[in-house]
Amino acid sequence: MKITATGIATKSSSGEILDVFFPIINFDGKTTDIHSLGEVSSSKEIIEISWDESDLNSPVKDVCSAYLKLHLLSYKFVLPNSINLDGMFGALPNVAWTNHGPISIDEIDKKLLESKQKNINLYVRSLDKFPCLTDYIIPRNVRIADASRVRLGAYIAEGTTVMHEGFINFNAGTLGKAMIEGRISAGVVIGDNSDLGGGCSTMGTLSGGNDIKISVGENCLLGANSGLGIPLGNNCIIEAGLYITGGTKIELFDETNSSKGIYKGAELSGLSDLVFIRNSLNGAVIARPNKSSVELNTELHSND
Amino acid sequence: MKITATGIATKSSSGEILDVFFPIINFDGKTTDIHSLGEVSSSKEIIEISWDESDLNSPVKDVCSAYLKLHLLSYKFVLPNSINLDGMFGALPNVAWTNHGPISIDEIDKKLLESKQKNINLYVRSLDKFPCLTDYIIPRNVRIADASRVRLGAYIAEGTTVMHEGFINFNAGTLGKAMIEGRISAGVVIGDNSDLGGGCSTMGTLSGGNDIKISVGENCLLGANSGLGIPLGNNCIIEAGLYITGGTKIELFDETNSSKGIYKGAELSGLSDLVFIRNSLNGAVIARPNKSSVELNTELHSND
Amino acid sequence: MKITATGIATKSSSGEILDVFFPIINFDGKTTDIHSLGEVSSSKEIIEISWDESDLNSPVKDVCSAYLKLHLLSYKFVLPNSINLDGMFGALPNVAWTNHGPISIDEIDKKLLESKQKNINLYVRSLDKFPCLTDYIIPRNVRIADASRVRLGAYIAEGTTVMHEGFINFNAGTLGKAMIEGRISAGVVIGDNSDLGGGCSTMGTLSGGNDIKISVGENCLLGANSGLGIPLGNNCIIEAGLYITGGTKIELFDETNSSKGIYKGAELSGLSDLVFIRNSLNGAVIARPNKSSVELNTELHSND
Repeated sequence: MKITATGIATKSSSGEILDVFFPIINFDGKTTDIHSLGEVSSSKEIIEISWDESDLNSPVKDVCSAYLKLHLLSYKFVLPNSINLDGMFGALPNVAWTNHGPISIDEIDKKLLESKQKNINLYVRSLDKFPCLTDYIIPRNVRIADASRVRLGAYIAEGTTVMHEGFINFNAGTLGKAMIEGRISAGVVIGDNSDLGGGCSTMGTLSGGNDIKISVGENCLLGANSGLGIPLGNNCIIEAGLYITGGTKIELFDETNSSKGIYKGAELSGLSDLVFIRNSLNGAVIARPNKSSVELNTELHSND
Repeated sequence: MKITATGIATKSSSGEILDVFFPIINFDGKTTDIHSLGEVSSSKEIIEISWDESDLNSPVKDVCSAYLKLHLLSYKFVLPNSINLDGMFGALPNVAWTNHGPISIDEIDKKLLESKQKNINLYVRSLDKFPCLTDYIIPRNVRIADASRVRLGAYIAEGTTVMHEGFINFNAGTLGKAMIEGRISAGVVIGDNSDLGGGCSTMGTLSGGNDIKISVGENCLLGANSGLGIPLGNNCIIEAGLYITGGTKIELFDETNSSKGIYKGAELSGLSDLVFIRNSLNGAVIARPNKSSVELNTELHSND
Repeated sequence: MKITATGIATKSSSGEILDVFFPIINFDGKTTDIHSLGEVSSSKEIIEISWDESDLNSPVKDVCSAYLKLHLLSYKFVLPNSINLDGMFGALPNVAWTNHGPISIDEIDKKLLESKQKNINLYVRSLDKFPCLTDYIIPRNVRIADASRVRLGAYIAEGTTVMHEGFINFNAGTLGKAMIEGRISAGVVIGDNSDLGGGCSTMGTLSGGNDIKISVGENCLLGANSGLGIPLGNNCIIEAGLYITGGTKIELFDETNSSKGIYKGAELSGLSDLVFIRNSLNGAVIARPNKSSVELNTELHSND
């Protein structure tokens, strides 16, 4: 496997690379739509990278390789959790992403003062190691209502809509058309035709000390303000407002409404065709077979 | 009834209309504050529309009529749910809303590359069919802390504050002064003096396959991270963190604390003076009479 | 105590002061990094302020003193809840914060029309009394993923990361390195090494009619979509999805798992080393000793 990429880097006045835009990538024969950089401003630096498979499997070693790996994910050349991203946080500098482009943290105070003196408006959109996806790549047939909530490194399948309350971290995303009004944490993937309701939460592996990768299968619905700390199979529903973690004790019922016993959430990982609810008369969390199917509203999900 | 409107359309380089700004509307004798367009850049197109009542009741037929209907809602000439919005999603193109204005999805890759070559900062604020309200209309006596979270087509009464976590979809909004720190889904209206707590959810009719229009009456409080799937009357409270849907089984108590039986949420639709809580000792969701009243903090809600 | 400050005010065309940027402050001998304004555009106005301690303890009297107090908080010269902020809402005008800088609400309609006529893109980022922190002050060693969600007047300790779903109001913030993916309401402070999970809520004193100041001690974890209406001590955990208020009835258990009785949340205010969960078999909210400790992911929290 051979990967070549050509990019344009922004540098601070002290020569630090702040970001790299890679419009030209050849990934083992598959290519991006752009094939020539054209004339580039002398304040920018051209970056050329040539990799083989071992580079994908090695930790991130500098800002250029960090940006290339994030581009590979967002161009959908590689799936989330399929390449080595160790060292990403260390390799990426914290940057002031402004309405005038990326500015080094070391220079932002001076630039801000100048902008007020001269009455030129400068403002910071984000102070972060990761930029927004759409500053670099515009995925086809996708809607992202608030672009500030999807990081470069997100993997977004065609037909996906990310509403204002939706969020997608790097190394995470959707494998098919999905309606995302909740938060997809780093490492989490959502299957085709699934719906993450407004404000719902998926637990990431970065912050929780959790070693299990969370995922959502196909045709699932996570209700508004619900939460998920286990992998789900297909055709599952979590009721609005209910948070299921690996430690939640859940009574499982079969199709005849007979109890099959009490399980921890982690023991139900990856099962399909379950509805998770909290009985509103006695507070018990239960799971029962899903007899209905989730159908997305066709008009609402049109992204043409 | 007669409606006339004059607007300014932005076109892509292939001639596709991306958006229309209608500063001049005469709605059956009531008018907007602006009465003349003045000189308009040759890259823009002037749009003139003349409608009667049947046009309000007909489906949306093209991008210009879509934008006019959204303007009618946001200028508060018509209430949410009072005009025909069928076909809205089909009529609106998906657009890249950038810091340099709307750009066609077909042209955004080229523009993005150019901006990096020339070191001119271009970024996408949103990839969506609907633009932000405040790109077109600034409602009087209203605060909107994060303008990216209120779509054109929102109906916002004077005295309303929309905090950073608030969200208002098109064909939805507030009928009086309200504090909005939660999400108002499409089709949902909130009454005077009501308060939607941080992160609370109202179920829309678009995504849930739900045919019942959700609404909140006057003097209601939806607690932080709560949720609502039924219409509420006046003077109701939903406790922080509690999600009430049409299917939630709720024990109803009277003023003497006697049980009046168990009802589905849908059976309590539209009732006034109720407090919904989950008993924290036994997990049961109950409703009881609301003896207090919700008073908004006067200083906090000042928008002058 | 002596405080002197020099700032640059933006004025509307009618002479109203819209905001003041104070890069130069001497707070009782401690100073900001900038010591000279340099040449300032004639459209701006220079503001000089000289205060003693009584001014900190007096209500906010005009827009300049409002901005100075907000700067004192965000430069971390004073702690949240330590100076008199009465009158802040009345002193601050509602302003259209645009990509071309602050514009008076009285002039925004005209400017918006002009921008459409001339094909110059103007858009409103926020209609609010409070601006974004990072339009004025860039805190060191801090990440703020979405700058629109942190108001000027926020107090943010070094090492803090505010993720996209995080929010920090004025007169609120973090006292040490913290991971903020939830909402810090006005008046709320978060201790060192604590973690606010995605979408979690802290109750403010402004909106709830609540007189008790909420705070979170050190080494605490508020789970995703949880909520807090009481002050917490150190080493506490609130389970994901659980909302604890002053009125929540909670059964307290000791280390031998013996019940110590039922308490209202308010009665547990400020206690340390507690885990709050809702028993998923019977819906009862309980508190028990915290035997584990919360450790933040070191790489994730690197802000260098």
